[in-house]
Amino acid sequence: MSKTPLLDTVTYPADFRGFDVAQLRQLADEVRTETIDAVSVTGGHLGAGLGVVELTVALHHVFETPRDILIWDVGHQCYPHKIVTGRRDRMRTIRQGGGLSGFTKRSESEYDPFGAAHASTSISAALGFCAARDQRGDDNKVVAVIGDGSMSAGMAYEAMNNAAETTRQLMVVLNDNDMSIAPPVGGMSAYLAKLVSGGAYQNFRRFGKQVVDHLPRPFRDAARKAEEYARGMVTGGTFFEELGFYYIGPIDGHDMETLVPILKNAAAIDDRPVLVHVVTQKGKGYGPAENSADKYHGVVKFDVVSGKQAKSISNAPSYTKVFGTELIKRAERDPRIVAITAAMPSGTGLDLFGQAFPKRTFDVGIAEQHAVTFAAGLAADGMRPFCAIYSTFLQRGYDQVVHDVAIQGLPVRFAMDRAGLVGADGATHAGSFDIGYMGALPGMVLMAAADEAELAAMIATACEIDDRPSAFRYPRGDGVGVEIPELAAPLEIGKGRIVREGTAVALLSFGTRLQETLKAADLLAARGVSATVADARFAKPLDEELILRLAREHEALVTIEEGAMGGFGAFVLQMLAEKGALDAGLKVRTMHLPDTFQDQDKPELMYAEAGLNAEHIAARALAALGIDRAAGAVRA
Amino acid sequence: MSKTPLLDTVTYPADFRGFDVAQLRQLADEVRTETIDAVSVTGGHLGAGLGVVELTVALHHVFETPRDILIWDVGHQCYPHKIVTGRRDRMRTIRQGGGLSGFTKRSESEYDPFGAAHASTSISAALGFCAARDQRGDDNKVVAVIGDGSMSAGMAYEAMNNAAETTRQLMVVLNDNDMSIAPPVGGMSAYLAKLVSGGAYQNFRRFGKQVVDHLPRPFRDAARKAEEYARGMVTGGTFFEELGFYYIGPIDGHDMETLVPILKNAAAIDDRPVLVHVVTQKGKGYGPAENSADKYHGVVKFDVVSGKQAKSISNAPSYTKVFGTELIKRAERDPRIVAITAAMPSGTGLDLFGQAFPKRTFDVGIAEQHAVTFAAGLAADGMRPFCAIYSTFLQRGYDQVVHDVAIQGLPVRFAMDRAGLVGADGATHAGSFDIGYMGALPGMVLMAAADEAELAAMIATACEIDDRPSAFRYPRGDGVGVEIPELAAPLEIGKGRIVREGTAVALLSFGTRLQETLKAADLLAARGVSATVADARFAKPLDEELILRLAREHEALVTIEEGAMGGFGAFVLQMLAEKGALDAGLKVRTMHLPDTFQDQDKPELMYAEAGLNAEHIAARALAALGIDRAAGAVRA
Repeated sequence: MSKTPLLDTVTYPADFRGFDVAQLRQLADEVRTETIDAVSVTGGHLGAGLGVVELTVALHHVFETPRDILIWDVGHQCYPHKIVTGRRDRMRTIRQGGGLSGFTKRSESEYDPFGAAHASTSISAALGFCAARDQRGDDNKVVAVIGDGSMSAGMAYEAMNNAAETTRQLMVVLNDNDMSIAPPVGGMSAYLAKLVSGGAYQNFRRFGKQVVDHLPRPFRDAARKAEEYARGMVTGGTFFEELGFYYIGPIDGHDMETLVPILKNAAAIDDRPVLVHVVTQKGKGYGPAENSADKYHGVVKFDVVSGKQAKSISNAPSYTKVFGTELIKRAERDPRIVAITAAMPSGTGLDLFGQAFPKRTFDVGIAEQHAVTFAAGLAADGMRPFCAIYSTFLQRGYDQVVHDVAIQGLPVRFAMDRAGLVGADGATHAGSFDIGYMGALPGMVLMAAADEAELAAMIATACEIDDRPSAFRYPRGDGVGVEIPELAAPLEIGKGRIVREGTAVALLSFGTRLQETLKAADLLAARGVSATVADARFAKPLDEELILRLAREHEALVTIEEGAMGGFGAFVLQMLAEKGALDAGLKVRTMHLPDTFQDQDKPELMYAEAGLNAEHIAARALAALGIDRAAGAVRA
Repeated sequence: MSKTPLLDTVTYPADFRGFDVAQLRQLADEVRTETIDAVSVTGGHLGAGLGVVELTVALHHVFETPRDILIWDVGHQCYPHKIVTGRRDRMRTIRQGGGLSGFTKRSESEYDPFGAAHASTSISAALGFCAARDQRGDDNKVVAVIGDGSMSAGMAYEAMNNAAETTRQLMVVLNDNDMSIAPPVGGMSAYLAKLVSGGAYQNFRRFGKQVVDHLPRPFRDAARKAEEYARGMVTGGTFFEELGFYYIGPIDGHDMETLVPILKNAAAIDDRPVLVHVVTQKGKGYGPAENSADKYHGVVKFDVVSGKQAKSISNAPSYTKVFGTELIKRAERDPRIVAITAAMPSGTGLDLFGQAFPKRTFDVGIAEQHAVTFAAGLAADGMRPFCAIYSTFLQRGYDQVVHDVAIQGLPVRFAMDRAGLVGADGATHAGSFDIGYMGALPGMVLMAAADEAELAAMIATACEIDDRPSAFRYPRGDGVGVEIPELAAPLEIGKGRIVREGTAVALLSFGTRLQETLKAADLLAARGVSATVADARFAKPLDEELILRLAREHEALVTIEEGAMGGFGAFVLQMLAEKGALDAGLKVRTMHLPDTFQDQDKPELMYAEAGLNAEHIAARALAALGIDRAAGAVRA
């Protein structure tokens, strides 16, 4: 017998618009079962989705999606949403190559009107839909669901600040589970906790029931009364009220009997944006998740009964862990070293640092703009801050890097984790652009680690650079297994290294493609072509002497990097052109990420698609040398 | 006799720490006189400075600057601050080449602990100073002064959200003059207005006097009482209280008798961050400024008695005005066109558009992150938004450009004003990096206008591109005087143009350096060298056919752009390398902005320093051709 008999009758939200509350409750239970089962097979984000099962069912029941616009912030809580919007049959492909995205995605479904993956964009996007609707004179509703963690980002505040001036109908559902990935941060979080503990909670349950009794009356009037009643009753919400919202809440987000009537009534409010404060529990309804510290935020495959996650076997530490460990060693020697993360203590390895130096660790929440300028302030007053932010998220603080760090030449060190392709998280999380956007900045020292020992050396280097801004990038995943010295020696600024000497072609790598580049040299050797392999280490300042020598002494020069066009290879070309090193001819090629956004897959398959594996590097070298023209066409 | 007898005795804040309130009042009056006189000679930001004269004097009187840290947000209100911190004798060099910066600047004075120019960074930076102080166990005070306009930016919110967790001593002075450059925007602004009209204003004046009477008592106790008194008395401030601040205010920022004691007492609070809400009048004390709509936000030289500003004579409209005018023409034909500005309606020319289409114009305040994603939401729902943001400020919305616009391939059009060097505003406002950071994004169409007719054509082009993201850049200042057609025809995507045919060297310009490039061709002709001049129009997609032809048919190829390394020239080189067009040798050079942050000067002198004027282009071409090697060294 099916464990999900009611869900089996549901493909789209229209299939449960006629359900009563008891049926909705059952449907939610079955969606929860299905979510757990699907994620146990694929791995992925689990805790967030489990927390919004009832909310998902209630929202699609109350609103006429996809005509009404429903936007999920971040989108990692969208698995239940995907299950009830025509994608149940593909749930076991989620985050796999060719499968469903782990986030909302416009190209995947009309029920995903706006994609996400980075936090805190939903209210801005929703206001865009509101303004477009208002321009057309249409009457569809617009709803944004945003977590309390996402509320620490300035972007959410900017949108809330604009809401009342932009439109009269917008519902923001604040999904308050008292955590994002890490424990909550900041004044807003404390404020929400106060609202929740304010005692209005139980009253709301009664309020919901009363409203149900009154449903035959015209919606609009009922909604007004309900809203007035709600506002009189609750103790807080003034923060949102001051920004121009009606505030309703807090509401138990797992109680369908409360949720459905309140959402129905709030949906009818069309004279001002409304914020519905819903309290949920991350990981709700699955014991192992509820009992875990991070509520199974992101998991690998697991056993449903025991909750035991499959462990991956690795012979080398992750780059992230190496960063955390090495920084601790340095901080023991230099009291000026402090560390900053934007809501990613474990993702960046700063959880380790935080245990060693709790007072020298700052988690600012999802707030990359503040993180960068806060670091600049620390640096201006004599500290040596390490700002550990994923490459893709540092885009959020780019102006602060330019304006507050680079122009002032302050010694902030950017640890750019997740550089290059990242696998299952797909295009939104790829660290593709940092080489270009950081390398263009005057005075910046920009490094990429070829392996974990190089990363240790680069951390040492950043510590030794005394008064300049610097940045170093390294990928997601495990190192290659090389030994890391007890205390890594710093590198000479702007000096690369020759890894292997050859004669015909020079392969110049920036970052962890060095391993593939060495394999490419072997492939070339098998074809009788002698290749020099060099590790640039620095994209800025470039090792001009080394690169000019490579250009001079080889017929061909190929650069390889895990980043977009306009990055390392481009800087090399501009330098070579400037020096006249291209005047007499050089078979030079720059290999970089393709000029497309690549969908999720296993990282090695993504790099194959990108044409950046050993065979592609070898083929490009051969084609450049004119030995094997056809091989040049290998690239995707 | 001097008009400023008391100010003449003051060089540094220590000189007026012993002044009584009457003397401080006189000093403020004289600082105001001096500010007006200085700006009448140089032009610059006037209204903002006049609004904070009393506040400036009071803060330096109360706090032990520079040991206590005083950070001005934006910094355009810092002229009075410069006058009383040792820079009075250089005030008439402000914003001139080699002179004082128009903003705060670390390299200029120890009284400028953190430079600024972009809005809303001050609280983040101040928290960095607080954290550094707390690490050291030091006891200096930290103060940030931020305008109400800057409060619309998410960055300020992120910082406020972190304040109470980061430190126990921080004073934020909210300088509320009810406007930034344009009228106020958003819920926060309305909230502040409500606080000001709440009636606590007059009471505070009495409160100030009472506190003065009590001053012999220990400071700390008095401060606590004062603070409690203040909080009980005022009607509002809960917004800031909820974020963890003590709120004090609103206070009359021109009344020295109130200001000094309240600042003194608030300065003693060291168990929680405090926000002092000060109400000031932009342009205060100078009739022509008070009576002007923008309160003399930014002015050119003017006559002090009449307030009449010197008009500059121009034969051509500004690029900004061309943008506004042309967009109106297009919007008359396409109801999907809407326009978005982030607090810069007149700066971007959208004031004109807003008059023509008030309901299709959105000023979101200083909120570039929201502006971009709001535009993405509009585009996702069928509109064709033009997001007009200065190149330098678009850095604030970079992640949103990547994540919400480019990855989703949404038809948002970015009008990037102030591209390239901007003159008196200096390095912080230069539009240096957009070619690289936008051109690296898959699917982006990126254009630069060579003159105002080209700008009109690019706006037409952006309107005709139906489903792709696009961006076009154009500089600050006036066009070259070419005729603009009644309705410009769109360009073919990815097609450049040959402007002048030659044989020996190809000069390939991207943007308004085309005029200098044409002059360079004349200089080359005088040296007997025949130059082809081409206008690339597109940095993405590149006109590969045109560029390959230029490479094939000329001995040398020089690219010219008003942007940093890693931009247009880099893209051209990567394409040429990819196609093997460098294999047999090409004397190729990429001319771009130098790899330094250039200080303010007249734009033409800044371009001379950058080595991007006609003589530099000609010299580079000659050097590449080997005709005149020495000339190649002209570049700074």
